Amino acid sequence: MATEAPEHKKHRRAGGRERRDPKAKINGPAYISRNIPTYDVMGEENLLKIEATAERILAEVGLDIRDDDECLAMFKKAGAKVDGMRVTFEPGHVREILKTAPREFTQHARNPQRSVQIGGKNVVFAPSYGSPFVMDLDRGRRYGTLEDFQNFIKMAYACPWLHHSGGTVCEPTDVPVNKRHLDMVYAHMRYSDKAYMGSITSEERAEDSIEMSRILFGKDFVDQNCVILGNVNVNSPLLWDGTMTKSARAYARANQAAVIVPFILGGAMGPVTNAGAIAQAHAETMVGCAITQLERPGAPVIYGNFLSSMSLRSGSPTFGTPEPAIGSMVIGQLARRLNLPLRCAGSFTTSKLPDGQAMQESVMSMLSAIHCGANFILHSAGFLDGLLSMSYEKFMMDADFCGALHSYLGGVVVDDNTLAMDAFKEVTPGGHYLGSAHTMANYTTAFYDSSISDNTPFESWVEAGSTDSATRANTRWKTALADYEAPGMDVATDDALQDYVNRKKASMTDQWY
Amino acid sequence: MATEAPEHKKHRRAGGRERRDPKAKINGPAYISRNIPTYDVMGEENLLKIEATAERILAEVGLDIRDDDECLAMFKKAGAKVDGMRVTFEPGHVREILKTAPREFTQHARNPQRSVQIGGKNVVFAPSYGSPFVMDLDRGRRYGTLEDFQNFIKMAYACPWLHHSGGTVCEPTDVPVNKRHLDMVYAHMRYSDKAYMGSITSEERAEDSIEMSRILFGKDFVDQNCVILGNVNVNSPLLWDGTMTKSARAYARANQAAVIVPFILGGAMGPVTNAGAIAQAHAETMVGCAITQLERPGAPVIYGNFLSSMSLRSGSPTFGTPEPAIGSMVIGQLARRLNLPLRCAGSFTTSKLPDGQAMQESVMSMLSAIHCGANFILHSAGFLDGLLSMSYEKFMMDADFCGALHSYLGGVVVDDNTLAMDAFKEVTPGGHYLGSAHTMANYTTAFYDSSISDNTPFESWVEAGSTDSATRANTRWKTALADYEAPGMDVATDDALQDYVNRKKASMTDQWY
Repeated sequence: MATEAPEHKKHRRAGGRERRDPKAKINGPAYISRNIPTYDVMGEENLLKIEATAERILAEVGLDIRDDDECLAMFKKAGAKVDGMRVTFEPGHVREILKTAPREFTQHARNPQRSVQIGGKNVVFAPSYGSPFVMDLDRGRRYGTLEDFQNFIKMAYACPWLHHSGGTVCEPTDVPVNKRHLDMVYAHMRYSDKAYMGSITSEERAEDSIEMSRILFGKDFVDQNCVILGNVNVNSPLLWDGTMTKSARAYARANQAAVIVPFILGGAMGPVTNAGAIAQAHAETMVGCAITQLERPGAPVIYGNFLSSMSLRSGSPTFGTPEPAIGSMVIGQLARRLNLPLRCAGSFTTSKLPDGQAMQESVMSMLSAIHCGANFILHSAGFLDGLLSMSYEKFMMDADFCGALHSYLGGVVVDDNTLAMDAFKEVTPGGHYLGSAHTMANYTTAFYDSSISDNTPFESWVEAGSTDSATRANTRWKTALADYEAPGMDVATDDALQDYVNRKKASMTDQWY
Repeated sequence: MATEAPEHKKHRRAGGRERRDPKAKINGPAYISRNIPTYDVMGEENLLKIEATAERILAEVGLDIRDDDECLAMFKKAGAKVDGMRVTFEPGHVREILKTAPREFTQHARNPQRSVQIGGKNVVFAPSYGSPFVMDLDRGRRYGTLEDFQNFIKMAYACPWLHHSGGTVCEPTDVPVNKRHLDMVYAHMRYSDKAYMGSITSEERAEDSIEMSRILFGKDFVDQNCVILGNVNVNSPLLWDGTMTKSARAYARANQAAVIVPFILGGAMGPVTNAGAIAQAHAETMVGCAITQLERPGAPVIYGNFLSSMSLRSGSPTFGTPEPAIGSMVIGQLARRLNLPLRCAGSFTTSKLPDGQAMQESVMSMLSAIHCGANFILHSAGFLDGLLSMSYEKFMMDADFCGALHSYLGGVVVDDNTLAMDAFKEVTPGGHYLGSAHTMANYTTAFYDSSISDNTPFESWVEAGSTDSATRANTRWKTALADYEAPGMDVATDDALQDYVNRKKASMTDQWY
């Protein structure tokens, strides 16, 4: 398909009632360009100490790369010291390697109006990623299926406040493990026109994801432009597994963006003290980003962060807690000092229900991502139970909060209209602004209008059934799915994608673990 | 009583099982000294424009002071232009008057270890203020009573994360309106040893509150030290009611601190655009603070803020929304430029239940107060239904979040221990930190341990009853009240306070409106 002329692709379309039309109005902004500064909580002296500790970790302790000899050879060639699978670096060496990474890049969506700009002042919201379970108020918790997976893609597509389709929005556990990625990538392409993520669970699956993107966007286009992200985890502390390095290299080789993410629960996979955990995360992330730059200098890459804490009574992971929230602010500063796009936090919680705890922890972690300057915010919607469940209701509640953040990131606009001097002269002391000319001229854009929050009088709320926000969200997701209309896709592309999926599936026996 | 020797007061004690002992360990910090900077979202140029607009409002529109001729005369004497009840000021004049106000001051508590420092880097949490209704999960919404009032004081006293007893924690609607303040102030004094607020609903009630404080602390002490706050509202837009100015002056006259708070719902009591609403709030607050400084130069005063928004579909007030959250950050910058202590936001919400909406909106507004540099945070716990209800459950949930904020405001500590270089050498790549010497040495203080959040595995959570956080909070407040032990108070002081209350009550007929 990659050799087909773009014109040819336009001739027929499949499924969706709406034709993909570059001029059609989209239902929300493609992404946010922030109008408020980042919140820099740490001073220069302490930042230098953390950076120096990261460099000492890389020089004096080093980092293991397991089962990827090519990667070890790459580092050796670049001048690192390699001893077995242990790699150590002279201070400053990794930073030097990172200089080829772009500060900002575009991830193209198949709807060009939906392409997202990652880096700089830009903020992109993507759904939660990786839960084996799904949950809703009607059916409770259960294993995720391909139908659930498709539902979350449809809901993200329909939501004006999510800019990105995400990746493994839930595990489709009814599909064999070795074939899931094909159905997942196809579903992102088919049921949404927003940008998406591909598989990283093996090099071959990463390459399948990229190959399917070549069918959708054209081979040459993909070689020159980023169209897919792969979220790659460090096996903290200080261990890179070959599965991950090979996937990261596959994305970089194809000029696609790896998101490099250590997952550190302080006290388990890193020091229990924030400063040390941050230094470790910085060391691990820098090395991961360096792998992509050695594989293909200039390939887009995202500096990721997934700092969290644990219950020191039970050893359980905790999310949305204050220490990682404030620690993430420092991570943001470190990423900016490397001129790398940043991925941070999201709507984290350990709650099992979309209740008060869930939203308290979610807002704490999401605002930390917003303030720390994160450019790509995975887990923006749906995260429940320490990432074990993807919640239909919380998805809608979180997405609504993402809407509020559009207003928040707009900051306080100061100009003659907003300063309202004329209004002060019109409405004298003790007067009322409701009917004033200034209010009339500005009210439609003044405040974010939540679709979940109830702000009616108590009596109206009782008459309407005394619902809590989770119950209202339950109604909202059902409406969103009922109203869903697929974006159009031309039949030739769709056929080619399905053909690829079917051929690959036929070539393998099912694996369930 | 003010003439009694302090020694005499110690001889007997009433009620409480615990003796007031200045050396007794208190159950939480007296207040927080923040270790993270404020979040300054607006640049110099725009701040100057907002300040200039506030000055223009004061010069070109002016502000009305209704029913307080003494206050008008004070302003006239100070050089303002007074025309009827309209006061206008030359640009810069009000700022000049404010120069006598202290940048920071101590509000003394009757337990000296509980005295709070207001201003500078300090943060003080006080419960919500002013709800006519109370609510709990068992009995639903009902009018507040004196018993509810006392309960919330007891809960705030028992809570390690609330530093202050607050003021009208709920309206005790079973007590006549003209006598409520006596029971309220007595309850703060008797059931807590934390600092508290007095009445502002009339000059006489303000003076009663102060007079009772003289009984508790001694007359001379009160003249030289702040022991009580009064929360005084502007009748926005640009109108100061005499009831409020007289109360503010009563506090200042006695060297006690007025909190000066405009309550602006953008589009109703001020412009619908943030910049204008902020300029108006700034003008109103500056004038209120100036009243205290003209009454008694050097009297402590707090620059307050209660910016909020409204639903432009229904006209209902909205709380915890993004626009006031970001606007408050600017208010913080303006207050600091005047060198005044700041009161901002709190745990706002319009939700009728302690649900997801409630905590999402609460955290949004509370973090805005934290980031904007608020020194005194009223409405930290219990706020529900746009301030119409004080919720027992939300009180516990919010207070628990105040605990989390203690860790958050501690920032990221950077030293040899927290950087953990030894730990990196002990735990090699791929190892585990759980049993490491560094974890053992640091784990008890590493992470905030929430008493409400559930972070157990799903199965344990199901076994424990599948509770949501509101249900757990319901258990917590009952335990808090059951375990409550009153702080000791010497009998002579208690008798004198009760005598004052009884004499004042006997001197008036009941008024119910």
